[in-house]
Amino acid sequence: MPTSPAPAATDQAWKSINTIRALAMDAVEQANSGHPGTPMALAPAGWVLWTEFLQHSPRHPDWPDRDRFILSCGHASMLLYGLLHLTGYDLPLEEIKAFRQWGSATPGHPERGATPGVEVTTGPLGQGVGNAVGMAMAERVLAERFNRDDLPVVNHRVWAFVSDGDLMEGVASEAASLAGHLRLGKLTLVYDDNRITIDGTTDLAFSEDVAARFEGYGWHVSAVGDGNDLEAIRKAYAAALADERPTLIVLRTVIADPAPTKRNTSGAHGAPLGAEEIRRTKEVMDWPDEAFHVPPEAHRATQRAIERGNDAYGTWTTSWQRYQAEHPPEAAELQRWLTGELPEGWDADLPAYGPGDGPLATRKASAGALETAAGTVGNLIGGSADLAGSTGVALAGVPDFTADRAGLQVHWGIREHGMAACLNGIAAHGGLRPFGSTFLVFSDYMKPAMRLSALMELPVIYIGTHDSIGVGEDGPTHQPIEHLAMLRAIPNLTVIRPADANETVEAWRAALSASQTPTVLVLTRQKLPVLDRARYGNADGLRRGAYVLFDPVTEPEAIIMATGSEVHPALEAGEALTADGVPTRVVSFPSWELFLAQSDSYREAVLPSSVRARVAVEAAATMGWHRFTTDDGQVIGLDRFGASAPAATLFQQFDLTAERIIAATRDVWTRRP
Amino acid sequence: MPTSPAPAATDQAWKSINTIRALAMDAVEQANSGHPGTPMALAPAGWVLWTEFLQHSPRHPDWPDRDRFILSCGHASMLLYGLLHLTGYDLPLEEIKAFRQWGSATPGHPERGATPGVEVTTGPLGQGVGNAVGMAMAERVLAERFNRDDLPVVNHRVWAFVSDGDLMEGVASEAASLAGHLRLGKLTLVYDDNRITIDGTTDLAFSEDVAARFEGYGWHVSAVGDGNDLEAIRKAYAAALADERPTLIVLRTVIADPAPTKRNTSGAHGAPLGAEEIRRTKEVMDWPDEAFHVPPEAHRATQRAIERGNDAYGTWTTSWQRYQAEHPPEAAELQRWLTGELPEGWDADLPAYGPGDGPLATRKASAGALETAAGTVGNLIGGSADLAGSTGVALAGVPDFTADRAGLQVHWGIREHGMAACLNGIAAHGGLRPFGSTFLVFSDYMKPAMRLSALMELPVIYIGTHDSIGVGEDGPTHQPIEHLAMLRAIPNLTVIRPADANETVEAWRAALSASQTPTVLVLTRQKLPVLDRARYGNADGLRRGAYVLFDPVTEPEAIIMATGSEVHPALEAGEALTADGVPTRVVSFPSWELFLAQSDSYREAVLPSSVRARVAVEAAATMGWHRFTTDDGQVIGLDRFGASAPAATLFQQFDLTAERIIAATRDVWTRRP
Repeated sequence: MPTSPAPAATDQAWKSINTIRALAMDAVEQANSGHPGTPMALAPAGWVLWTEFLQHSPRHPDWPDRDRFILSCGHASMLLYGLLHLTGYDLPLEEIKAFRQWGSATPGHPERGATPGVEVTTGPLGQGVGNAVGMAMAERVLAERFNRDDLPVVNHRVWAFVSDGDLMEGVASEAASLAGHLRLGKLTLVYDDNRITIDGTTDLAFSEDVAARFEGYGWHVSAVGDGNDLEAIRKAYAAALADERPTLIVLRTVIADPAPTKRNTSGAHGAPLGAEEIRRTKEVMDWPDEAFHVPPEAHRATQRAIERGNDAYGTWTTSWQRYQAEHPPEAAELQRWLTGELPEGWDADLPAYGPGDGPLATRKASAGALETAAGTVGNLIGGSADLAGSTGVALAGVPDFTADRAGLQVHWGIREHGMAACLNGIAAHGGLRPFGSTFLVFSDYMKPAMRLSALMELPVIYIGTHDSIGVGEDGPTHQPIEHLAMLRAIPNLTVIRPADANETVEAWRAALSASQTPTVLVLTRQKLPVLDRARYGNADGLRRGAYVLFDPVTEPEAIIMATGSEVHPALEAGEALTADGVPTRVVSFPSWELFLAQSDSYREAVLPSSVRARVAVEAAATMGWHRFTTDDGQVIGLDRFGASAPAATLFQQFDLTAERIIAATRDVWTRRP
Repeated sequence: MPTSPAPAATDQAWKSINTIRALAMDAVEQANSGHPGTPMALAPAGWVLWTEFLQHSPRHPDWPDRDRFILSCGHASMLLYGLLHLTGYDLPLEEIKAFRQWGSATPGHPERGATPGVEVTTGPLGQGVGNAVGMAMAERVLAERFNRDDLPVVNHRVWAFVSDGDLMEGVASEAASLAGHLRLGKLTLVYDDNRITIDGTTDLAFSEDVAARFEGYGWHVSAVGDGNDLEAIRKAYAAALADERPTLIVLRTVIADPAPTKRNTSGAHGAPLGAEEIRRTKEVMDWPDEAFHVPPEAHRATQRAIERGNDAYGTWTTSWQRYQAEHPPEAAELQRWLTGELPEGWDADLPAYGPGDGPLATRKASAGALETAAGTVGNLIGGSADLAGSTGVALAGVPDFTADRAGLQVHWGIREHGMAACLNGIAAHGGLRPFGSTFLVFSDYMKPAMRLSALMELPVIYIGTHDSIGVGEDGPTHQPIEHLAMLRAIPNLTVIRPADANETVEAWRAALSASQTPTVLVLTRQKLPVLDRARYGNADGLRRGAYVLFDPVTEPEAIIMATGSEVHPALEAGEALTADGVPTRVVSFPSWELFLAQSDSYREAVLPSSVRARVAVEAAATMGWHRFTTDDGQVIGLDRFGASAPAATLFQQFDLTAERIIAATRDVWTRRP
């Protein structure tokens, strides 16, 4: 461990660095919760980065060509808030004082949208590494597409501060391996090698040679032996700029530096230092014993940071104006991409299917819709976790994203979690619309990142195919059961399970039209009939989540609702029942979220309160359907794991058949109140 | 790529190896689905391992001192089935012919319990690596505890075959890093370096130096340049035996070797080779053109494998008999541990709490119960993903599991997913009862492995603390919302959210009593009152999932049900309502799964159909509660993300208060039918 505590404030930089340290101690103390140690340790590296290397403009936090900074160790949020405050972002001292309080701009972990200058929501460890990789990918795509020789209007870098915990998490390993493969040279991770975790020293569980591991990934690795050595930090940043590979800087720090008693202890990780230790630390720093003190030197540094940012922004603006003048179509396109708007008529040529086009798996119909949309929307980027063909995302003629070329087709490797974290990074970067695919059952691997898509309100599109026991022979490890329930339970995530090819096209329309909501498209492996829309009505009912496919001539006395592949036996059942004296409505119910967003009157029109005999059918866990079926209804599903056998055998064995639906519906209809 | 195809059957070993290859081709062809390429490529390495190095006895598949073999690339299941069949396990040729069919012992991916000799269910990539690490940990613990100088009754190794996909998955990275840290020298991974994935060559997404990465983890790494070179394979296995570090053998193979057209193509990964290619491959192998042919040489090899196994088992049995004679208490203890039985009276001294012991967080009560149980049960092993203190699993006086000592306290590092996969391995190994803890919100990171605990029927105990917005200031990234729904939707997983200290003790009793079901204990960060059991009845009602805490003197006309921390405002509300003329029952409802397992009459007794005015309260997503509240009831929950603020503020802001419960209950009571 570097033995000397940080110097007292003897030069300009240290005045600001010590301000960050003091604010971190004071804010955590005042909130009586939080993480003071890491902000203190990383303050020097943060300050040098933000005032000398980071390309940003505090008064223009939305400048598209800004460098992206990610605090992957989000618990160290006071580092970020201190940097934002001291470099002149709109984050006044009152907000620092309201750290971790209801409604403040300074939540416990950084939250995208809550604070100007915060790029992504972090806290769940490892995610920020994936976000950073995704952002560096986005930058490369935009740069390659839009830059002209003398006008590099897209030219920025991605910097992330990461902790031991980030690098222990598998999602970071996945993303780092991909970043090395793609040679994302504008990506730099600063690894806070403080050798302290919550439970004690990292020796407890972590003795790997991180540098060797990252060299194995194809990264440029450098080391800074003392996190307080500003000159060494500068040199490491400069070396990162010069290398064509992604860079990992192993920065040896001392947690809670320079707190005399608690530095280098796990006690300084996640709890206030206490008034006495703070007083003594301020003594060491030659600092007034006053909470939330910001010295005049720091104020002057803020002015300089603002001016530095304004200059950079001004230079870029000049280039951008020239670019607009010299390359009007490209400028217009880049602008549209950055706003996230879809081009006029983007969906005019989406495919439409007739019954003769079936049977067709919805994953195949999805492939057709994606192919068309990719052509018209222009900025769709994505691919699969090694299931491009199976999931229908292999795009003919679209170049691959490789180390040499930033094509829009990405091979994520067998790294679902890394993929999802990168998708969040791409979406948060702006300018591109990302999607990723795998089998639905492996949404499990992506869950932490999908939750963050929803929390950050990023319109990422997830494609989950092989969506039920329809998977067949691959067996229970590959057959989703509980996944629809898991995904539907996530706030602000739209789950859509279309019933046929035309609903699948509508699902893509809905997904691409969303701007603040991620979507999961849930698609079959197996072929399904294409519904005759002349008979069953337009598939655009999907946009309202649920709609009537079939109605008896008289008022319905029973309702069968179903999603995806189960709509077909439901229809068969409803028509047979109606013919047989049980007037039955059949509702296609592809999306709970879209349905619940409709007006009361629409919902009442589709599911009239007076019709209590209801059956819901879905080849999945029944959880949650009772809300729609009423007490007098019945839910047909699968509350057990699947099995390995041909799909048709499984639907029979698990009794997910039209016959069962007929029997259940007749039963609830007979017993209706 | 090694250029020469595998030799035709010129010696004994190759007769068996080619039998495995032919069976893989034939079985996949007959099933018209499956993965022929990898079984063919790995047949030589598999055969040498299983007949020359693996310590096993095909006629005694449950021999506790057998080596464990894990096929982490579970899609190559025909390799495993071929090896089991040809070394004499109870897997007749008829089962091979029924590959991937309903009810067969040869499902598409290996399933624990479906086939003698299959140790774990694999298929979801990366998991097998974690399972292998867990098994090697279990072996070390048992060996260190029970072996006596001349009687090493526990002395076996763990071998896993892994694919590119396994090594790309983050969970494998996490587990491998831990294995290096713990120097698990009896663990060997054979990496099938075939450079082919489903989407094409690994160059698409995977160019890292795997050997360098594993050396960074502290592993012994060796390479075999040709997967058909039996002598080189033998040398690599022998070197693994000799090294004290875990070993990775990078085995260069050619997928679908020796198929003349499809070898070394991704087309051979996941689809039948086709009749013509099979015919030509058999020509290359000098093999009869006959499906499921097993030559006499292979039958003789089976006999030898059985004899080799019987010999090994016999030798061990002799040692074991001596051990039983010379060390009776140890032998009895080992036997008990292996059966999974709990000792008589293990729970007699579990703590009991009075109201004066409160307020107490359930995580704290859990710590007390665990401390006691660990002492009496003896074979509990576990720890936390770097949250031992916060989650209450730091056990005083229990030694750590380190590279030098196999203590029962494990520091998993910040590797939730790796932890869970290791827990599965420990449980599947037998002899120990594993548990792992983290914050409930990070169950997301473990979901793929938790699903496999449930699918494999392994009694793993998961501890998820900080179970709601009660987390407070850490904010939405750390506040579970949808997690209870996610976990409850998994078949065969018991979720328990106790309401106070005594329910927490009962929850531990239930979890440890389960033998084929994993359990998740859902615990608060915040302090809760300890219910006065003289007044509210015994907490052992928890074992039945839901029970009456409070009843009015007259028949109840309304029911409030709640879990965990929300039981307390529910009680307050129920008592106030009853006093105020609304006779209200309050039900503590800690576990849906336990409740649904009760008799109809018990469930009717707790939730009488006649009482339709019901309110459910839980600080979580409402999904699924409607099933219990009826159409006339109401669910009070949280279908949005949380926020960063003190916990008390959040419960107020999100209106999870006794006042709201009172208002809602009065409302449904007033409108009751």
